[in-house]
Amino acid sequence: MRFNFSGGPGVLPETVLQQAQAAIANVPEVGLPLLGISHRSDWFAAVLAETEANIRALLDLPDDYHVLFLQGGASLQFSMIPMLLLRGRDKSADYLRTGYWSAKAIPEAAREGRVRVIWDGERAGFRRLPNDGELDCAADAAYLHYVSNETVEGLQFHRVIGRDDVPRVCDMSSDFLSAPCDAHRYALIYAHAQKNLGPAGATVVILRRDLLDDVPPDLHTSLDYRSHVKAKSIYNTPPVFALYVVMLVTRWLLRDIGGLSRMGEINAAKAARLYGAIDASDGFYRGHAAAPDRSTMNVVFNLGSPELEAEFLAHAQTAGFSGLAGHRSLGGIRASIYNAMTQDAVDALCEFMDDFRQR
Amino acid sequence: MRFNFSGGPGVLPETVLQQAQAAIANVPEVGLPLLGISHRSDWFAAVLAETEANIRALLDLPDDYHVLFLQGGASLQFSMIPMLLLRGRDKSADYLRTGYWSAKAIPEAAREGRVRVIWDGERAGFRRLPNDGELDCAADAAYLHYVSNETVEGLQFHRVIGRDDVPRVCDMSSDFLSAPCDAHRYALIYAHAQKNLGPAGATVVILRRDLLDDVPPDLHTSLDYRSHVKAKSIYNTPPVFALYVVMLVTRWLLRDIGGLSRMGEINAAKAARLYGAIDASDGFYRGHAAAPDRSTMNVVFNLGSPELEAEFLAHAQTAGFSGLAGHRSLGGIRASIYNAMTQDAVDALCEFMDDFRQR
Repeated sequence: MRFNFSGGPGVLPETVLQQAQAAIANVPEVGLPLLGISHRSDWFAAVLAETEANIRALLDLPDDYHVLFLQGGASLQFSMIPMLLLRGRDKSADYLRTGYWSAKAIPEAAREGRVRVIWDGERAGFRRLPNDGELDCAADAAYLHYVSNETVEGLQFHRVIGRDDVPRVCDMSSDFLSAPCDAHRYALIYAHAQKNLGPAGATVVILRRDLLDDVPPDLHTSLDYRSHVKAKSIYNTPPVFALYVVMLVTRWLLRDIGGLSRMGEINAAKAARLYGAIDASDGFYRGHAAAPDRSTMNVVFNLGSPELEAEFLAHAQTAGFSGLAGHRSLGGIRASIYNAMTQDAVDALCEFMDDFRQR
Repeated sequence: MRFNFSGGPGVLPETVLQQAQAAIANVPEVGLPLLGISHRSDWFAAVLAETEANIRALLDLPDDYHVLFLQGGASLQFSMIPMLLLRGRDKSADYLRTGYWSAKAIPEAAREGRVRVIWDGERAGFRRLPNDGELDCAADAAYLHYVSNETVEGLQFHRVIGRDDVPRVCDMSSDFLSAPCDAHRYALIYAHAQKNLGPAGATVVILRRDLLDDVPPDLHTSLDYRSHVKAKSIYNTPPVFALYVVMLVTRWLLRDIGGLSRMGEINAAKAARLYGAIDASDGFYRGHAAAPDRSTMNVVFNLGSPELEAEFLAHAQTAGFSGLAGHRSLGGIRASIYNAMTQDAVDALCEFMDDFRQR
């Protein structure tokens, strides 16, 4: 394969892969293979410290936030968040149901307390996101939860939503560090690594310190953010390899790319090229998401019939494009163009799409 | 460094590291770098299937067990197990407190129900394990929980304990697949990968199917074993890289080593050599664990004073032996000699120990 458009785990920068590969044999500063280095070594402490510093620099994050590295993916965050913020509270939490992933978060929250679904995109076929006028955010909500980019449907919020006086909690798994995001306006941001950040198995959680001022009693230690804060993310053995790669990726973003403004421009250009090819196809390719809510990360579209889509996917595979099948829940085509996807690869895909259409 | 005696993440076989390194650049069957391959690909389904088959073959595991690959380490199992087996039950669970790790499991269980600590090794300085006559295992316990090998203290059960009519639950994190273990006598076995099995970030859970016949209501989806059974361990994105390495290690155990009987012989020989060097040192080196309970995985010992221990560690480091410092909770020296540690490395350490003593 030449080009990997997989929805995740996604493509990583070539230079990062080369460094990860070298470290498997030997980390020169330690003199050991990466997989045999203790998570309590000075070297790994420096890896975590640099990763955190890179993320803080990229997001211009104020000091009153913790940056944690956890396991269990976004799915475990669906549970840990309401355990902290909803359990035993005399408040309800506001959730948006904008697609596959935000829908998965809701039943977990409902185990811990009252949930209000303040927007349900199902009636719009999960093809668009709400306007501010359609959102009835409660002033007394425990928190507001939403997913910034719905990976499956290719829907992305291009603004911060909700009220500044209610804690904003956002699953940024599929667009974290893809563009500037006004991190200081959120109370809690979480993102698994395997889209823009590194290999599967690591999850970044950024939370404002005051969220830990009032924690329900009797949380299990592994499920209590305070354990991970206190232990600087090595309460138990973390995924050392995955976090090393996250460090390399954040370093690449900071030094090679030059920060999130530039990354956002690159991603916007790639997305514009691909949506442009769809829009110029006279309806041969049909975008799933309404134009204002189109994702810069996941470009979801259909062809005239499932048979034609199968033919498209087969030809694409032969031509060296992998990972283009839509999510199993939706079908169709999905081209995921995460940070490490190059403009050249997007150009090549657009040319393939034009050729396929003309045949 | 030439030799890595770290308590974990531990040393891995050289051939496994070479294969892992090659896969970072490209997995030939897929034509993509390992870190960009989807966890829902046919290739990864085959990786999980082979890993499971290898573990089943190595343990001669009956069909009525599930084999799961999870995240969160043994620490999350400390919580998931009592959530399943103790929550809402009119029974208590029997726990052994034999060292650092078994002690960590107890408070998590106590959040879910009644716990009886039926042996507390603290009065013996965590230097020995109980005899069968000292264990008062309740016939009506929800389950019995123990740790087969205490990594910190270097204590290992060389027999199966407890009653056959009460579910046995065992944390085998640090001796899983190091020797035959009568897996069919356990209801649930769990082990994180980073000792004998692979990189940190993956955890193997083996559980008898009937444990899932009666599950408490309202478990969070990520914390309910049934979610992972139903989804064949890809309920959410698993740590693809770590699990690929676990496959390579189990393949190495089966094909290169030839199974657990042979692995057990090799490990026993390495341990005998090292304890022999301690016992022949006229008290210069002093083993921590009582002889019958000495671990074949973690050889813990002291020298006459903390100053002498510091000198030993400094000289060892210079001589190419890393990871020999005891666990931070106990101090002293710990040589971890997991499956992938070679007899040559153990011989070299013993020679170094003799030289150091004679100087």
